[in-house]
Amino acid sequence: MTQHQSDQHERFERGLRALSAIDGDAGHKVIDSLADIAPDFARYVIEFPFGDIYNRPGLDLRAREIATIAALTAMGNAAPQLKVHIEAGLNVGLSRDEVTEIIMQMAVYAGFPAALNGLFAAKETFAARTAADQEHAA
Amino acid sequence: MTQHQSDQHERFERGLRALSAIDGDAGHKVIDSLADIAPDFARYVIEFPFGDIYNRPGLDLRAREIATIAALTAMGNAAPQLKVHIEAGLNVGLSRDEVTEIIMQMAVYAGFPAALNGLFAAKETFAARTAADQEHAA
Amino acid sequence: MTQHQSDQHERFERGLRALSAIDGDAGHKVIDSLADIAPDFARYVIEFPFGDIYNRPGLDLRAREIATIAALTAMGNAAPQLKVHIEAGLNVGLSRDEVTEIIMQMAVYAGFPAALNGLFAAKETFAARTAADQEHAA
Amino acid sequence: MTQHQSDQHERFERGLRALSAIDGDAGHKVIDSLADIAPDFARYVIEFPFGDIYNRPGLDLRAREIATIAALTAMGNAAPQLKVHIEAGLNVGLSRDEVTEIIMQMAVYAGFPAALNGLFAAKETFAARTAADQEHAA
Amino acid sequence: MTQHQSDQHERFERGLRALSAIDGDAGHKVIDSLADIAPDFARYVIEFPFGDIYNRPGLDLRAREIATIAALTAMGNAAPQLKVHIEAGLNVGLSRDEVTEIIMQMAVYAGFPAALNGLFAAKETFAARTAADQEHAA
Amino acid sequence: MTQHQSDQHERFERGLRALSAIDGDAGHKVIDSLADIAPDFARYVIEFPFGDIYNRPGLDLRAREIATIAALTAMGNAAPQLKVHIEAGLNVGLSRDEVTEIIMQMAVYAGFPAALNGLFAAKETFAARTAADQEHAA
Repeated sequence: MTQHQSDQHERFERGLRALSAIDGDAGHKVIDSLADIAPDFARYVIEFPFGDIYNRPGLDLRAREIATIAALTAMGNAAPQLKVHIEAGLNVGLSRDEVTEIIMQMAVYAGFPAALNGLFAAKETFAARTAADQEHAA
Repeated sequence: MTQHQSDQHERFERGLRALSAIDGDAGHKVIDSLADIAPDFARYVIEFPFGDIYNRPGLDLRAREIATIAALTAMGNAAPQLKVHIEAGLNVGLSRDEVTEIIMQMAVYAGFPAALNGLFAAKETFAARTAADQEHAA
Repeated sequence: MTQHQSDQHERFERGLRALSAIDGDAGHKVIDSLADIAPDFARYVIEFPFGDIYNRPGLDLRAREIATIAALTAMGNAAPQLKVHIEAGLNVGLSRDEVTEIIMQMAVYAGFPAALNGLFAAKETFAARTAADQEHAA
Repeated sequence: MTQHQSDQHERFERGLRALSAIDGDAGHKVIDSLADIAPDFARYVIEFPFGDIYNRPGLDLRAREIATIAALTAMGNAAPQLKVHIEAGLNVGLSRDEVTEIIMQMAVYAGFPAALNGLFAAKETFAARTAADQEHAA
Repeated sequence: MTQHQSDQHERFERGLRALSAIDGDAGHKVIDSLADIAPDFARYVIEFPFGDIYNRPGLDLRAREIATIAALTAMGNAAPQLKVHIEAGLNVGLSRDEVTEIIMQMAVYAGFPAALNGLFAAKETFAARTAADQEHAA
Repeated sequence: MTQHQSDQHERFERGLRALSAIDGDAGHKVIDSLADIAPDFARYVIEFPFGDIYNRPGLDLRAREIATIAALTAMGNAAPQLKVHIEAGLNVGLSRDEVTEIIMQMAVYAGFPAALNGLFAAKETFAARTAADQEHAA
């Protein structure tokens, strides 16, 4: 293994740990779905957002997920990624009520349709999570 | 004063207090600039975003400003409002470094140009604030 | 009932009447779907857009729905709300041909894909309405 | 002149008349500013939006300008064109209050910043028009 | 046939040939789907984008499809049209790898979600094309 | 220097070479302007877009700049970055006419205002370049 390959590997590993901690299974499914069309892009997703950005010390993960949920709700054109980050928000300590507050607030900045579609994404994500929890408990 | 006018007034007053606490002078300038074209809209700005949304108990103002700065950076078409909310974020306890982190993170969700333009808005806002602080200190 | 609750109620009732007149069943379905996740947001939808904005005297409902159909077509990221407002436009007096003209014009301002997707939303909405009319007639 | 050139000419002339009637001087300035970089695009602007769309019989010009002002306010990234169409709206019979109502309503669909920036564009356009009127009257 | 009708016909025919060459079956399906709701819009789609723009000599079709795939990926709100133009790109000589590179690059300008959703659209389009090829070969 | 720092350095150097070759002076100005507010973000701009994406072998720089100019024109909310990439397009071999064609085509996908504002950005960039060329020649 060359020096270059070894450092790529280190940054990738750091990103992969962040991806697992934040996005959990949903994140890994996204990565897996890229394997046959753009494996390099799967690597970039792990390296830049997770290896670089989410690992930065200046802002905790709770604050980072507030920012991401707000942005994806406001943009309104990335429903699958919004659902992944609603999951991520819950994973890093946001309550369901806090997620709902963030999305509702977006009515002010991006309009009521963006907030409504965000709330419906949250409703679906919460329901799937409740169903998964009940299955594990059974 | 009728009952209806009195409650309008109460909601308006609550919004006005939130506007002062959060947006400070910058917020009042926006309200003043609407006086001759759309005074009712000035009232709505105070009543709905500030009287209703920012007064809700489920999320603190620090978290609310993280969400707003993220959304306005990502949307990339509301520079004046982004500057007002960078000010607002600092007013409710975010550090300059935290504001910078939120904006940088938006490169992942809305692209590098949106993040760059957000950083330039922050740079201008920070400089204006430093200048104002020095004036007050002089 | 306190004075505050009584006025909330009045504004809410006025909004509810506007919602029924404009959006009809489609509007009520949206409100109902928020009951278990964000009941306060259902209330805001009724109070601000319908209680405040659509009740303003300066522009008739026909003109207001032209504006809304145009905006939602141009934004291109809120298909469910566009369908509700195509219904609403027909409810307040726009003809199917007028709705089609508004959407076609958006090709100029937001591109052909936005107009195409708007036309497909209209096609679906018109078909559902024809089916419902035939059911009632049967 | 070949047959093809003659018909191009007819469609172009029809569009030019519509451009003059609707956008007035502001429209001609846009066309002139394209002369040295993209003269063909100037021709397309005249032929498709004005020669084809605005000449269609199914919707009057007042309704068409309501749609355009709404869309450009909501999109929030085309301030120069929004100003041209606020002028155009006034040219085809909308009052200043109606223009203001349309823009305010966009707070519901595209957020308060989009509506605020639209109102500021209207304020500037109204002031320039008042100044021009006073000059003509002098 | 009047002179006007004859030239309309010529421009339409030229656009139809371009539509067939570029978008193939997918393009014709879009046109057909407009027949019962907005036949004039079907004509405009053929005349302006295909009769006027794609027939211009200054840029080859390969370059034009690179531009269109990039724009539709970045805008992120027109998935059906993006799929049609991924097909179109392959029809005019782009390789699957080149299409994938264009879409990946959009992560830089429009964020990772836009690029991810573009890659999933490409994956679907490539799979449908492989399936169709295998059917023809059988 | 640790192994990690050494590889960071290598990727950074590769990106810096690409930035110089593609964006030239305009790119370096962007980087410099980040020095006092977000030096890490300057590094990310060099590492990810330039070190990773623009260095990939599957698509030449000419094609990459076609994609970027198209996307930034269509998004319509990043004028400074559009100007940098119009420069970049010319630097890697696009002619002024080709840049103009790409931007004009965006009328089809993002509307006439987006194309118009793109053309005005090109006009300004071309003029600045002509002025700079004349200065060097003097």
